[in-house]
Amino acid sequence: MYDIIVVGAGVAGMSSAIYAKSRGKNVLLIEKESFVGGTIQNISTVTHYAGVLNDESGPELAKRIWKQVKEMDIEIVQGNILDANLSGDTKEIRTDKDCYQAKVVIIATGTIQNELSNINKSKFKYPIALHNSFEQVEQYKDKCVCVVGGSDGAAKEALYLAKKTKKVYMIILEKELSCIEQFKNPIMNSNTIEVITDSSLSEVDNYERLESIKVINNSNKEERIIPLSGGQIFIYIGSHPSTQWCKEIELENGYIKTNTNMETNLPNVYAVGDVRVKKVRQISTAVADGTIAGIQATMKIK
Amino acid sequence: MYDIIVVGAGVAGMSSAIYAKSRGKNVLLIEKESFVGGTIQNISTVTHYAGVLNDESGPELAKRIWKQVKEMDIEIVQGNILDANLSGDTKEIRTDKDCYQAKVVIIATGTIQNELSNINKSKFKYPIALHNSFEQVEQYKDKCVCVVGGSDGAAKEALYLAKKTKKVYMIILEKELSCIEQFKNPIMNSNTIEVITDSSLSEVDNYERLESIKVINNSNKEERIIPLSGGQIFIYIGSHPSTQWCKEIELENGYIKTNTNMETNLPNVYAVGDVRVKKVRQISTAVADGTIAGIQATMKIK
Repeated sequence: MYDIIVVGAGVAGMSSAIYAKSRGKNVLLIEKESFVGGTIQNISTVTHYAGVLNDESGPELAKRIWKQVKEMDIEIVQGNILDANLSGDTKEIRTDKDCYQAKVVIIATGTIQNELSNINKSKFKYPIALHNSFEQVEQYKDKCVCVVGGSDGAAKEALYLAKKTKKVYMIILEKELSCIEQFKNPIMNSNTIEVITDSSLSEVDNYERLESIKVINNSNKEERIIPLSGGQIFIYIGSHPSTQWCKEIELENGYIKTNTNMETNLPNVYAVGDVRVKKVRQISTAVADGTIAGIQATMKIK
Repeated sequence: MYDIIVVGAGVAGMSSAIYAKSRGKNVLLIEKESFVGGTIQNISTVTHYAGVLNDESGPELAKRIWKQVKEMDIEIVQGNILDANLSGDTKEIRTDKDCYQAKVVIIATGTIQNELSNINKSKFKYPIALHNSFEQVEQYKDKCVCVVGGSDGAAKEALYLAKKTKKVYMIILEKELSCIEQFKNPIMNSNTIEVITDSSLSEVDNYERLESIKVINNSNKEERIIPLSGGQIFIYIGSHPSTQWCKEIELENGYIKTNTNMETNLPNVYAVGDVRVKKVRQISTAVADGTIAGIQATMKIK
């Protein structure tokens, strides 16, 4: 039996594990992917996080935090959570690989990026990048690409792609760009980015390669065909919490409710990072959640 | 008039300023010292903070975050706060240099390290380092030094000094060492660190140099004289909040009360980092507080 199981090796989970382990606890970290970092794997350039390196990408930062985890000798296993029993004194987590027990569980499963519900990815012959493929952008350097979404994250990736590709079409639902000023100003002044407002991606022509997309204006219903000719689509239209296995836990719109100690409604079950109800979802707030739960949880274990 | 004044350029204050500025706000950062970083200036090695570099010291991390602040073109002035009017729509802050106005104030003044009340520093001919001088430890490499305090921070600095000096006497009030395991185990196994439990520093002999200290056992009142012969004393006995100028703000034991948005009882006045009421005081939680206030505050300003 472990003292603490941390579910999810994004930045919140890794931070939890580091603090708990430093306090002498027997910690297991479970991650569903073959890599760590969670959502920050999708970030081309980490901005604003105190201590990030110059032009550091999400995967690069994840790798550095992973190094901290390894140096602490924290045990990690790969596995998909199938089921969990979190209400008893002994918590049980069953993955597709094994079953694990602990006194305390810290849930750090984060969020899953949304996909476009009207676009059937499975019918495409050529795989389109719905997200998380900025690392392969080199192959699109002479092509036009499309970013769907108007969030801060979408805007940042549009700016990154503008430096790496021929042209970026940014399709946003809003009538004007509403991301933070630091990204808005350079996008508005860019010759490489065309912002298509009040619009949605309605069709994708994809044969041997991605040929073109159809964009519809949501007010006047006018359609426009944009040739991408072998380019790519990058989709940043929000995310939803990864909590389908958290049956006994109190949720709000799918997110886990906690108090300021990161405690859920179940004794000795914590939730940290993007998976919990909160207003500000940034790397720093995920890291701090992990810190708080990692420290608070160890105080529960004698 | 500024949109936002951030008072204090520790990690919480710098993080606030970065996020507010990225959202297009006109930000002024006021710092009382001639350097930034606040409390982390006293840390020889930053541990556990996600993204810290290998063996990075507090001052080194502070310098990297400072670089992020400068790259955002954030205005900073040096000044001691004398007075503030925070209750009106226009907030006013008066320092020994000038008077500044803003729509929003974020208080990030942190804490001030406690000094030993029974030791009159001013009577010493040779200055003793009450804290914050680990950067000059090179001169004590052949000397014995003393660490007063048993916190995680004190323990970490004792381990650091054990590598840099001849011998470390660690004087703690508690009957046994109660710091985190990661520091406790190596201290207990160290030949260079002697932990003197249940004791207090009662006298310092200081003439042309620091000669010796007297340590009293708090249970049996036995005294012991420890020769330091030109060594040094490092004091880590907690800290108190720097809020004496916050007259209109609701405090608890001197710390500022906030909600989870970092809002104080006064409209458009936020508090972040070690200066606020909270359970976990770590670099990561200070950075996250700054992130939250920096983002939330900008949403208040049209």
